[in-house]
Amino acid sequence: MDTLELARAGAAAARALLALGPGIKDGALALAAARLREGSGRIFAANEADLAAARAAGLAPPLLKRLTYDEGKLAESLAMLAALARLPDPAGRILEARRLDAGLELRRISCPIGLVALVFESRPDALVQMAGLAIKSGNAIVAKGGREAERTNRELAALLAAAGAEAGLPAGWLSCLETREEVAELLALDRYVDLVIPRGSKQFVRRIQESSRIPVLGHSDGICHLYVHEDADVAMASALALDSKAQYPAACNAAEVLLVHSGIAQRALPAIAAALESASVRLELCPRSLAILGPGPGRSPKGGGDWAVEYLDLVMAVKVVGSLDEAIAHVNEFGSGHTDAIATSSREAARRFMAEVDSASVYWNASTRFADGYRYGLGAELGISTGKLHARGPMGLEGLMTYKWLLEGSGQLVADYASGSRRFEHAELPEERGKRYGGN
Amino acid sequence: MDTLELARAGAAAARALLALGPGIKDGALALAAARLREGSGRIFAANEADLAAARAAGLAPPLLKRLTYDEGKLAESLAMLAALARLPDPAGRILEARRLDAGLELRRISCPIGLVALVFESRPDALVQMAGLAIKSGNAIVAKGGREAERTNRELAALLAAAGAEAGLPAGWLSCLETREEVAELLALDRYVDLVIPRGSKQFVRRIQESSRIPVLGHSDGICHLYVHEDADVAMASALALDSKAQYPAACNAAEVLLVHSGIAQRALPAIAAALESASVRLELCPRSLAILGPGPGRSPKGGGDWAVEYLDLVMAVKVVGSLDEAIAHVNEFGSGHTDAIATSSREAARRFMAEVDSASVYWNASTRFADGYRYGLGAELGISTGKLHARGPMGLEGLMTYKWLLEGSGQLVADYASGSRRFEHAELPEERGKRYGGN
Repeated sequence: MDTLELARAGAAAARALLALGPGIKDGALALAAARLREGSGRIFAANEADLAAARAAGLAPPLLKRLTYDEGKLAESLAMLAALARLPDPAGRILEARRLDAGLELRRISCPIGLVALVFESRPDALVQMAGLAIKSGNAIVAKGGREAERTNRELAALLAAAGAEAGLPAGWLSCLETREEVAELLALDRYVDLVIPRGSKQFVRRIQESSRIPVLGHSDGICHLYVHEDADVAMASALALDSKAQYPAACNAAEVLLVHSGIAQRALPAIAAALESASVRLELCPRSLAILGPGPGRSPKGGGDWAVEYLDLVMAVKVVGSLDEAIAHVNEFGSGHTDAIATSSREAARRFMAEVDSASVYWNASTRFADGYRYGLGAELGISTGKLHARGPMGLEGLMTYKWLLEGSGQLVADYASGSRRFEHAELPEERGKRYGGN
Repeated sequence: MDTLELARAGAAAARALLALGPGIKDGALALAAARLREGSGRIFAANEADLAAARAAGLAPPLLKRLTYDEGKLAESLAMLAALARLPDPAGRILEARRLDAGLELRRISCPIGLVALVFESRPDALVQMAGLAIKSGNAIVAKGGREAERTNRELAALLAAAGAEAGLPAGWLSCLETREEVAELLALDRYVDLVIPRGSKQFVRRIQESSRIPVLGHSDGICHLYVHEDADVAMASALALDSKAQYPAACNAAEVLLVHSGIAQRALPAIAAALESASVRLELCPRSLAILGPGPGRSPKGGGDWAVEYLDLVMAVKVVGSLDEAIAHVNEFGSGHTDAIATSSREAARRFMAEVDSASVYWNASTRFADGYRYGLGAELGISTGKLHARGPMGLEGLMTYKWLLEGSGQLVADYASGSRRFEHAELPEERGKRYGGN
């Protein structure tokens, strides 16, 4: 099949998926898990071949680790599929219900988006995860993984596609592309593909974002801030800085920039620097913070005016600001709209920061590292979006859902309302919210 | 100011708007109404000049009518602004609340999207409406109207911008572009502009959609269907066909295609055709429906295989289908995802149609003409979207809203949860839903 036929088949499968209830979807998740377990020999052999080729090509150890799909990764995949099966069906929920008139009832119902393109770099487990999310949400999926994981992805996709079809999913619910040229073709097929989800480095995500007119879900940059207000508890601020920066510095929600109010800088900066430096964090300091802290190993003046740097490493930029307003303006100017936190004992300052910082997640006295679907209690994590439309911040399954409006009548005509012979009642039916449409 | 400066100022205004509560916004709506009333002489004079130029240029009467801004239109604008002021503030609502752990509470809160570009054809009242929606929702706006309405738009924008600023909105909350070149520049500024709303013909909307990477809200086509199932009540189906097609044929939610099940065609088609022809609707008939109805004035064979035609006129295409499945497949293949209806006495057939037709609005025994923000009870109508992301179908103010996640803690660190020394509680707080964040 060429890319166009594949996209058409995917779109047709997406429509067929609209007819399925939770039983078949959860059955498909269970069967997918069983088939992965049974086929693990073939999967691991394919992964060994990918790894051997990658080693021969001189791939760096962190990339080899990401490429690995072994017993441990399989166990994670199976646990993820089982957890998805236990979640309530995200489709068919009543989001809003209103009686427009006697015998004329309007409901807004959650439903899957349609055909999702997954384009991912080396981690083969991303394919299993997205396939599971697609099954649970009722979306069809076209996937393209990195070339290094070609053999592993092919085995995984074949097993998953067959298991889904065996469990009653429509043919074409999961298909794979093999070449970059096909991806370019797919990203142009906005008539068939509803959403693109890229998984990989920020350069990779940005390239996808720039090469498609189809909506792209996700984020490229994570330039997160911790702002220490003048009335902050210094011990708390130090602990928050350490956790936000150093608990896992390669994460997108790790803080890159520390802003400190000038009224507390003299007192707070030495304590915060000590905490950070105990974890080997290097500091890039603005002139005022350098003057307060003085020179030292791992301390350097922050060069240039670019505060929009994502280190993803044990490095933190530090800036003294004159006011809450300046802190908010700095975050909005240089941040990436991901996650930003204030440390303060003032409810008023916290409320202003939380209202006026234009980011997906804004925190008061908590570590930026909390920005995560699991920690948020979303059940399943699809990723984190810094876009403002559709889904924002950590996304659960609802990132793969849209809604439709269903109107049930008994022959009502607009002419009767236009003439005034009938009037709209518009009575909300809040008791229906969250229930399943047409079912129990 | 050049376009870049204007967009920057708009983005800055959007951030300043985040700090405003409902009082200032509703005050601005009231003052805008007062200033429009006081300045009506200047507005009407400018509109007379636009109309004179348009008449001299030979503009067609329907376009002249759309261009007119007179006492009647002003009264509609003032009523719209007053109605907006009475609505609850769409910002600052708690959409979801969850206690992650003791003293660590997460809330998802509605907030405005940011800077919206409004690009509209000749109707000057669209500017007043969007300005009102922007004030109420807390979004900033850059607008560009059609050249025919240049003088009217300039008067309206100047009055509205000044009234808003006088009432406390940030400078730059409303600005206008004058040339097409500036619009092209603006549509490339995705760093500053969050959303584009086009208002005009479908060709106009499609041109905007194709020329910007910024998300575009709205729809181009409205190819709506009425499907008459084999067990439909023929009198009801006839009335629904007449209302869906002829109550206002130029609307996007008017039905363009009638599908009739072969099991009822012989009985239903003559009655439906009689109803439609009583309103001078011309029929374009498939071979089977032509064979049943026979030739007649206003009846012609449907040529070619293109069923995706938006007549926006007293013309309806008619097709006999062999099954519910064929009807669903036809709608999904040729429809525009706007609004589609089934007439049936079977709950089972209705449920299948409503689940499997992939459109923003799907109806059972109701006229397609109900697809409208006012009829849906949305309070204010922003437009109708056929996109699947963000907002779908008729949109109220929530089409201009996004959300952010606010986390209030007391110094919590992720390290404690990663080590297992603390555990997440993830307790839902449903009683907070719908309330105002941080207030009463």
